[in-house]
Amino acid sequence: MTAVPKISGATRLYAIVGDPIAQVRSPEVFTARFAAMGVDAVLIPVHVPDARFDAIVPALLDIGNLDGVLVTVPFKARMLRFATHLGETARCIGALNALRRDADGAWTGDMFDGAGFVRGAQAKGERLAGRRVALFGAGGAGSAIACALAEAGVASVAILDPETGRAGALADTLRAAFPGGRFDVAGSVPADANLVVNASPVGMAPGDGLPADLGTLAPGTLVGDVVVSEAPTAMIRHATACGCRWVNGRDMHAGQVDVLLNFLLPHGPRPR
Amino acid sequence: MTAVPKISGATRLYAIVGDPIAQVRSPEVFTARFAAMGVDAVLIPVHVPDARFDAIVPALLDIGNLDGVLVTVPFKARMLRFATHLGETARCIGALNALRRDADGAWTGDMFDGAGFVRGAQAKGERLAGRRVALFGAGGAGSAIACALAEAGVASVAILDPETGRAGALADTLRAAFPGGRFDVAGSVPADANLVVNASPVGMAPGDGLPADLGTLAPGTLVGDVVVSEAPTAMIRHATACGCRWVNGRDMHAGQVDVLLNFLLPHGPRPR
Repeated sequence: MTAVPKISGATRLYAIVGDPIAQVRSPEVFTARFAAMGVDAVLIPVHVPDARFDAIVPALLDIGNLDGVLVTVPFKARMLRFATHLGETARCIGALNALRRDADGAWTGDMFDGAGFVRGAQAKGERLAGRRVALFGAGGAGSAIACALAEAGVASVAILDPETGRAGALADTLRAAFPGGRFDVAGSVPADANLVVNASPVGMAPGDGLPADLGTLAPGTLVGDVVVSEAPTAMIRHATACGCRWVNGRDMHAGQVDVLLNFLLPHGPRPR
Repeated sequence: MTAVPKISGATRLYAIVGDPIAQVRSPEVFTARFAAMGVDAVLIPVHVPDARFDAIVPALLDIGNLDGVLVTVPFKARMLRFATHLGETARCIGALNALRRDADGAWTGDMFDGAGFVRGAQAKGERLAGRRVALFGAGGAGSAIACALAEAGVASVAILDPETGRAGALADTLRAAFPGGRFDVAGSVPADANLVVNASPVGMAPGDGLPADLGTLAPGTLVGDVVVSEAPTAMIRHATACGCRWVNGRDMHAGQVDVLLNFLLPHGPRPR
């Protein structure tokens, strides 16, 4: 990181809110990107204690030189009500991870966790439209990815989750939002799947294996894994062993930074 | 500025609040000093719109990783009620310009505008105790300087202000707080004054002259001027012409940075 973030009285603020906050990497990443773009802004970590969320957020949004907010655990759903306008994905999923101040002072919010996966795949030259998806996990990350994949034009999504109730609810949500697609709860990976995505927590613990027995994957299958880890996860190792291409948690995060910068700075970088 | 302020999720926040805010220099100055001290913290500008002050401040003070607040125009008096504990000077003057979060979560506030002047003078080797002061201006800056000079042990303060009412009120406040000193409203600089301080706005406009006819100052007279300007003010030029030593607005601001850092980091720098 060679760019020097310099803070003056005229510097614009972006905040990431969460509880806890010390683990987030966005302040480093975005502040460096702002500097590289010539935008006089910093992204600051803001530790909002859970019990004070509803009181702190409206005050934050009233700060005159604060232009955007990123949202992390546990506030992605609770932030929804502070947006003046909601993007399609946020409305579909019922959660958001970014808010931006518009020229008229209104706050527009949307959810980019899934768009980050799509952008990360596209950045690696992968084509997603028409793919038949098997998705592990119907939680926050899985819902966001399912929605973004549907927007990217996949043909179908088979949703695998031990909690079949939330898998079914997600399938219903997707059917309502994307009438042209096929969205089903599944107990195993369909034989014709050619995009297999792990959005479950399996892989986060060092000894974790695959989210399910995947057999040998056809080489044209694209494998995705939301887990960010030093060593490749079992899922990514299996993809490599089968000769498949993959998109991992780092690709997804890098993709999301680009997507979020486009959202936060819709008119491009402003000169310093 | 060679130190690189790097912002991570673990970075601690200090804020300066004001309306407007773009003109403040503290973010640059303090962020560089934190970095030089090895303290993982930044000072951010926070534009608090006047009408939203009472709603925003309590929320700011509830942010878990915010450890201190500097206060500028127009909030120095209104911030008083948000402090759990007040220092002597803040209580005496009825205004504060810094708040720090104590280990028990309480907020201690105090006013350092005057201490900055005293520190700036001391940094230049000037002795203040026993001096007979003529002070122009009984507003916020003048009150803070009068109080700090009284604490530093000056023998007397003659207060000159076209608004004689506020000059008298300041004299009364000082008499009550420092029973040993002599504090009077004056219409001209007493003949025996050997510390002449301009804390009035005279000198801020480029064409401004002296706050009053000062005649020829005795060489042992110390001259102070709160005005920060590129070119020397008429007051400082007059001091130089009379062979007097002086303390200007820049000396005062530099002194205040040291005093404020001691206040904000009472246990010294914490390692990164």
